Amino acid sequence: MAASMALCRLHMRGKFVLERSLQRADAFLQRSLVTEAVSAEDEAARKLDPGVNGRKSLRSLQQERREQAERSVLVSCGSTTERKFLKFLSRHGDVSKCFFYESYGVYAVVEFSGRDGVASLLEAASIPSASHEATLPFKSRLLSFRTLGAGGPAAPAGLKLQPQTAVPINELIQRLSRQDSIDQQVSSLVEAYQLTEENIRLRFLVCSLLKDVAAAYFPECSVKPFGSSVNGFGKLGCDLDMFLDLDGLSGLDVKPPKSGPSLEFQMKRASSERAVTQSVLSVVGECVDQFAPGCVGVQKILNARCPLVRFAHQPSGFQCDLTANNRVAMKSTELLYLFGELDPRVRALVFTVRCWARAHGVTSSIPGAWISNFSLTVMVLFFLQRRSPALLPTLDRLRELAGPADRSVLDGSDCSFTSDFGRIGPGTNTETAEQLLVAFFDFYSSFPFSRASISIRKGREQSKPEVAPLHIQNPFETSLNVSKNVNASQLDRFVALCQESSWLLQQRETVTPGGGNAPAPWGLAALLQPSQVAGIKTRKRRRTEPASQRIKSLLESLKNQNHQKKS
Amino acid sequence: MAASMALCRLHMRGKFVLERSLQRADAFLQRSLVTEAVSAEDEAARKLDPGVNGRKSLRSLQQERREQAERSVLVSCGSTTERKFLKFLSRHGDVSKCFFYESYGVYAVVEFSGRDGVASLLEAASIPSASHEATLPFKSRLLSFRTLGAGGPAAPAGLKLQPQTAVPINELIQRLSRQDSIDQQVSSLVEAYQLTEENIRLRFLVCSLLKDVAAAYFPECSVKPFGSSVNGFGKLGCDLDMFLDLDGLSGLDVKPPKSGPSLEFQMKRASSERAVTQSVLSVVGECVDQFAPGCVGVQKILNARCPLVRFAHQPSGFQCDLTANNRVAMKSTELLYLFGELDPRVRALVFTVRCWARAHGVTSSIPGAWISNFSLTVMVLFFLQRRSPALLPTLDRLRELAGPADRSVLDGSDCSFTSDFGRIGPGTNTETAEQLLVAFFDFYSSFPFSRASISIRKGREQSKPEVAPLHIQNPFETSLNVSKNVNASQLDRFVALCQESSWLLQQRETVTPGGGNAPAPWGLAALLQPSQVAGIKTRKRRRTEPASQRIKSLLESLKNQNHQKKS
Repeated sequence: MAASMALCRLHMRGKFVLERSLQRADAFLQRSLVTEAVSAEDEAARKLDPGVNGRKSLRSLQQERREQAERSVLVSCGSTTERKFLKFLSRHGDVSKCFFYESYGVYAVVEFSGRDGVASLLEAASIPSASHEATLPFKSRLLSFRTLGAGGPAAPAGLKLQPQTAVPINELIQRLSRQDSIDQQVSSLVEAYQLTEENIRLRFLVCSLLKDVAAAYFPECSVKPFGSSVNGFGKLGCDLDMFLDLDGLSGLDVKPPKSGPSLEFQMKRASSERAVTQSVLSVVGECVDQFAPGCVGVQKILNARCPLVRFAHQPSGFQCDLTANNRVAMKSTELLYLFGELDPRVRALVFTVRCWARAHGVTSSIPGAWISNFSLTVMVLFFLQRRSPALLPTLDRLRELAGPADRSVLDGSDCSFTSDFGRIGPGTNTETAEQLLVAFFDFYSSFPFSRASISIRKGREQSKPEVAPLHIQNPFETSLNVSKNVNASQLDRFVALCQESSWLLQQRETVTPGGGNAPAPWGLAALLQPSQVAGIKTRKRRRTEPASQRIKSLLESLKNQNHQKKS
Repeated sequence: MAASMALCRLHMRGKFVLERSLQRADAFLQRSLVTEAVSAEDEAARKLDPGVNGRKSLRSLQQERREQAERSVLVSCGSTTERKFLKFLSRHGDVSKCFFYESYGVYAVVEFSGRDGVASLLEAASIPSASHEATLPFKSRLLSFRTLGAGGPAAPAGLKLQPQTAVPINELIQRLSRQDSIDQQVSSLVEAYQLTEENIRLRFLVCSLLKDVAAAYFPECSVKPFGSSVNGFGKLGCDLDMFLDLDGLSGLDVKPPKSGPSLEFQMKRASSERAVTQSVLSVVGECVDQFAPGCVGVQKILNARCPLVRFAHQPSGFQCDLTANNRVAMKSTELLYLFGELDPRVRALVFTVRCWARAHGVTSSIPGAWISNFSLTVMVLFFLQRRSPALLPTLDRLRELAGPADRSVLDGSDCSFTSDFGRIGPGTNTETAEQLLVAFFDFYSSFPFSRASISIRKGREQSKPEVAPLHIQNPFETSLNVSKNVNASQLDRFVALCQESSWLLQQRETVTPGGGNAPAPWGLAALLQPSQVAGIKTRKRRRTEPASQRIKSLLESLKNQNHQKKS
């Protein structure tokens, strides 16, 4: 690979970068360039923030990633060798990053060191000609690499493929069983589940491709990932939540003069901001459906509380949700990111608890009365705030530390908190991941759910403002309960499972590492195995509930709670 | 006006043209610029064709007009004076043309001498802020000029307004009655009805604004007016037929190499070219409906033989039809344009006959069993080919004269004909407009409609290939009858009216100019007055037909014949 890259750089300075083709292809990229011009705010953020101990603010991280993504293309590779492929690409520019993965065929993410590389590549690309009469000629940075050699298509060429999905639970259990301590098991789980560098690049690239669609009408817009793709708690294979940001539009801040003549754009009006969001998503969704290659199963869910367009992006394998005007969710993402970056044990515990919860059906990929990943994460954060000494500060404390640049009021809610790691300072808690895990199960085994509400803003139990089995205060819209979907039986299951796991971790046979080549599951691995107490109970209840009832409640929650799972 | 323009030019070179704002606003115009790059073909056509006796090919004329339109903006003026308005504009660039008209308020078409004028203007424009939360922030070249003076809105400022609709028939009759000869009447009618320079500019500007919408997804597309807007026979106020042309896309002509690697855009497929057209029009129509300011009543008529999007463009007052992939209609337009430019008597006679036909209900703006304007025009052309000596060449002759660049085969039909006026040469027919008008009515008073088909390709009667009251061969798709919608009673009316008009033109009292200030209608004016023979007859028949039957036939013809009226 290193040799091939050097080869690329050599070629790049060669005769292949044609002035003429650049000029012409440049036009293609102009829409994307606009964003760069208006994101001066982001740029300033990046420069001001060199990072504390290598930890950067989410905003500057996003800006870097977006910029990388705009220099990248996604290529279906067919059968080739890495060497041949890179040699071809290097005719168009210096390739700064390239990796391969599999999803409905083999794809490559190719990042050039400059936009002119992309421009040159697109200039050389052809519109599929064999059947061009029935091709929708919408050009994008999603391409196919063809090799028509004398010998016909070659055999698969043994490219190194980067995994884009998490290992199956059984494989994970085996892997964890081979570790020597529970702390090592936790690290190994995080390692296996967390988003890879490549997966994050791919997510930003898909956002960037979608931005090209939206930028068609709103040249100054941006499409930003939020939620698990960027909050630090995402698992390989998780959905890609995106947010179409129109606030960067120039002309919004142009104030007409008090006197004298001025010009205004004529624009269509809508009855409300919500109606505008619906219109914009409707047209963008229509275009994704009709034009955008690789996007299938497009659903416009415009009447949801938070209108969205849902689709599958086949080349990346991502299930995508595009929303607009969803700033509180973005703030939520920033907060989780901040907590996750403050101490490595935060992400370790969140990943572990989420994996454990999923293994026992506490959480689910289907909307319903289950505890959501976001709720579960808030429960972990709350638990860490309640340690003595506290492992995490309260949100109120983070708000106190906020500087003028951090001030933010959205929809009437105060969403201010510092994003400066330097201001927060290190904590004094020294517990190990194992100790924290045990303590977590103990904590929620005996939590007074019936009367107390969980509040990471205050960092201590609050009295419940309303009747609901599980009450977790929304960190920003504090009058809302993020877990109002959870019913009593699901909460009971969660508590029973906590009790069971707490009990298991007190048993000598559970906490003693196994031996040999295929050791029996122990420690964390044992916790991930089917439960003795809670599994059968629930399966019974679900069987007795009529199917129509279950489907009805699924549909209801899909409609009402779409906004909740975006964290 | 001249003084104001001089003032503009003076200002333009001043301090107001800011480098910075240009850079930023330039991004906005980039999509349009692309067209310029790919229309090298058009550019070549323009350079090769300096025009014969000032007559240019339609293609080079269109190219010039398109280029003008891309340097133009459409501004709602409110109340201002021309001087103030131009002074304001001149801050942004040299204004090469500016005129005012009324349509749902007063508007101005402003053409800058360069694109940077438009860029600077847009940079300075604000997004309506009072209610920006409910504004769809789609920026276009449709703007509003506001004057917020100390004294509040001024009174209407007496701007010179250019008419954009034809004079009413009664006013026309009065005007014609004051002329001294029938030839003068014909000239006066053409003068009153034909599209003005300003109206043509406005049409191209609306196309250009719509191109900005479509260029969002297809940066290299163009939107071209066709039919009466550009064929030389359009009447002020006629519909604006537009054609979204995607054939200029680069990459269509890029042939993948026979061997070795190559790149292809990944693109969505559709089952047919028709399905592609439907998809494209659907998305563009959706955007026009949701975003484009001033566009109302958007209807997607995608299942018509020629799929189209219909809408009213309020700022221009045009009823618009947008089609795609409609190249035969474009050829038809070129042919009519060529015939019209060959001899001024062609347009004189076509305008006169169309006006006469409309006055007597032979043609109608509603689809139905009426003779279409296109059919009527072909009948006039055929009549002029049948004169002795012929006033117009046959289409077969024009095809013989075609050079290699004129070759064109569309959907299997030979659509080649010369566009070089020099090759055709002047005819020897010297009849006056009056003589031709008399001869026209005589010709069709006794035309053997029952057995003969009208063919401008052959320039002589053909035997009818199928049963239809009126058979007019489609000039390009020669197996089709362009007047298959016409029923026997409508044809009978037409013949009766020709006979009546022929008789009237033989009466001394008809052909003698009136005297005094308000002379009685005479000559052509007399022909435009309600008929004695045909009017009542038809009104009776239409009354006896059940309304439901009429509506049904209207809907049928709307569905089937949309493509026919595009000429």
